[in-house]
Amino acid sequence: MPEHRRQQRSSPEAGPRQQPRSSLARRLLDGDRRALARAITLVENDDAAGWEIVREVYPRTGQAAVVGFTGPPGVGKSTLLAALIKLERDDDRAVAVLSVDPSSPFTRGALLGDRIRLGDHFLDPGVFIRSMASRGALGGLSEATLQAALLMDASGRDLVLLETVGVGQGEVDIVDHADTVVLVVMPGSGDSVQALKAGVMEIPDLIVVNKADHPLTDTMVREIKAVLALGPREGWRVPVLRTEATRGEGVPELREQLAAHRAFIESEGTLSARRRRNLRNEVLAIAANRMRRELEDAIAGDAAVQELLERVVRRELDPASAATLVLRARRGITPRF
Amino acid sequence: MPEHRRQQRSSPEAGPRQQPRSSLARRLLDGDRRALARAITLVENDDAAGWEIVREVYPRTGQAAVVGFTGPPGVGKSTLLAALIKLERDDDRAVAVLSVDPSSPFTRGALLGDRIRLGDHFLDPGVFIRSMASRGALGGLSEATLQAALLMDASGRDLVLLETVGVGQGEVDIVDHADTVVLVVMPGSGDSVQALKAGVMEIPDLIVVNKADHPLTDTMVREIKAVLALGPREGWRVPVLRTEATRGEGVPELREQLAAHRAFIESEGTLSARRRRNLRNEVLAIAANRMRRELEDAIAGDAAVQELLERVVRRELDPASAATLVLRARRGITPRF
Repeated sequence: MPEHRRQQRSSPEAGPRQQPRSSLARRLLDGDRRALARAITLVENDDAAGWEIVREVYPRTGQAAVVGFTGPPGVGKSTLLAALIKLERDDDRAVAVLSVDPSSPFTRGALLGDRIRLGDHFLDPGVFIRSMASRGALGGLSEATLQAALLMDASGRDLVLLETVGVGQGEVDIVDHADTVVLVVMPGSGDSVQALKAGVMEIPDLIVVNKADHPLTDTMVREIKAVLALGPREGWRVPVLRTEATRGEGVPELREQLAAHRAFIESEGTLSARRRRNLRNEVLAIAANRMRRELEDAIAGDAAVQELLERVVRRELDPASAATLVLRARRGITPRF
Repeated sequence: MPEHRRQQRSSPEAGPRQQPRSSLARRLLDGDRRALARAITLVENDDAAGWEIVREVYPRTGQAAVVGFTGPPGVGKSTLLAALIKLERDDDRAVAVLSVDPSSPFTRGALLGDRIRLGDHFLDPGVFIRSMASRGALGGLSEATLQAALLMDASGRDLVLLETVGVGQGEVDIVDHADTVVLVVMPGSGDSVQALKAGVMEIPDLIVVNKADHPLTDTMVREIKAVLALGPREGWRVPVLRTEATRGEGVPELREQLAAHRAFIESEGTLSARRRRNLRNEVLAIAANRMRRELEDAIAGDAAVQELLERVVRRELDPASAATLVLRARRGITPRF
């Protein structure tokens, strides 16, 4: 347990003005792993008790560094995380991993003899690993991911790592919870570089070319640097790192660059600006997602709305007009069906 | 102009029970290209007149085959579309292309001397090409894309081609407007195959390996077929085609398979089921998107909500509770800020 974190958080500046009432929240704040696991399950199941715990512990959040790792499946994100965690543990930093990548060995249950040796980490109380299923609505998943990350943060983890898959735009709202975004690619992972080049993918804070033993690594690093050279000249210069995660090569440099990025965003005021923007978007996303779910629930049992949708299918009523009528009905205005 | 389409559509079965009042809608239904271009611009600008035109012409939609082409940037989707259009034009079929891929030469303005020769198509009245900017909210873009596709359909195009970029989940809602979804990859486009393998990307109806001259094509086709072999045994068998679009090779086979898929979904009732599901989702998506925009507009000028967001930033109020309060305020219930 990072005792200094606990002490920092009980200082008046940290903001908690009242002790949490529920014992689960209290145990979570004390760093109890089982309490953390239980709370995340509640959040994942959309249980009201889960939201209540997040509410209680929220004043203790904002201390952990949250780093998002994204990239296509198969590039070795999990192996890289495992190597990074090892270094963090050598410095006695408490780590949590939240994987929302269905192709990740973390998600698939690495305990069952995975080729990458995560076993040690699973048994280490300083490392908390959790996966989230990506089934269900993306909005809902993103919401649950944020809540889980907040719970990890509140439980006294120094570093929260989010692992997510993506080469396009779908992963964005999950990565948006992070202070630092790392894109992991590998030689031959050309789609990602093309997506960066085409401006389809947002430029991350760090780029890691993993499996750097490959003969095409130099070409790929050159291509990525050419893309980055077209970007803004000022501010943070996105480093392109080479790693061979299975042997831990390049991982100390990755850790240095993560620290450098953190120092940069802290000194420039970018961290608070980014968190302000993220939190604002998250409030809106949660509200919008709830409205949509309420709408879907209301529609499911509404014969008039079902008939309206049938008229759309019969091409008698266009989708936008139907949407207007549905919204009017929801607002209690008698619609002219 | 496909005269047979015009006749079909004025039959009583086609459903139009009243003539559109606006002259723009009338001209669009007569196949006037400038009217179509103007109407799409109105829709893209979220102009009320645009929605009104879609409403007027909607009874004449549902006749065109809508085919979505997705895949990472740089695999040659546009070249493939150009080659396919050539064959369709040889049969005098009227085609429209809607590109929502920022990396596409269609979007970038291929008229200005692009290396792929789209010039002929741009001058051919039987081909209507339009791009949509992918800036702005994704929900909004998807909405505008649907409306534009409906306008193209109503204007008497036999075939509407949607081009969109993606290797993950972000492109899904645009492709969801299509009756048939084609994934285009190329050798070395490993991320896409990994994404299919990992179950991150939904299995499309057809897969095209373009740039099939490449020595690694056989390997890639084998990998894709191995992934497909894990899927359901019944129903449509997803064909894996090889094309060399710059020389038109394999494009007749692509066209045959598109026709075969169309025949399959028509005979199995899948087409109407798919359209029913898509239209239903579209009504909900439009309604949800409007609710979100209304929420954002309402929040922007609301001092109480701004203060509430500040409390989230100060870690005094958690995002989910803030969302609840925002929604309560919107519903006219005095929130306990």
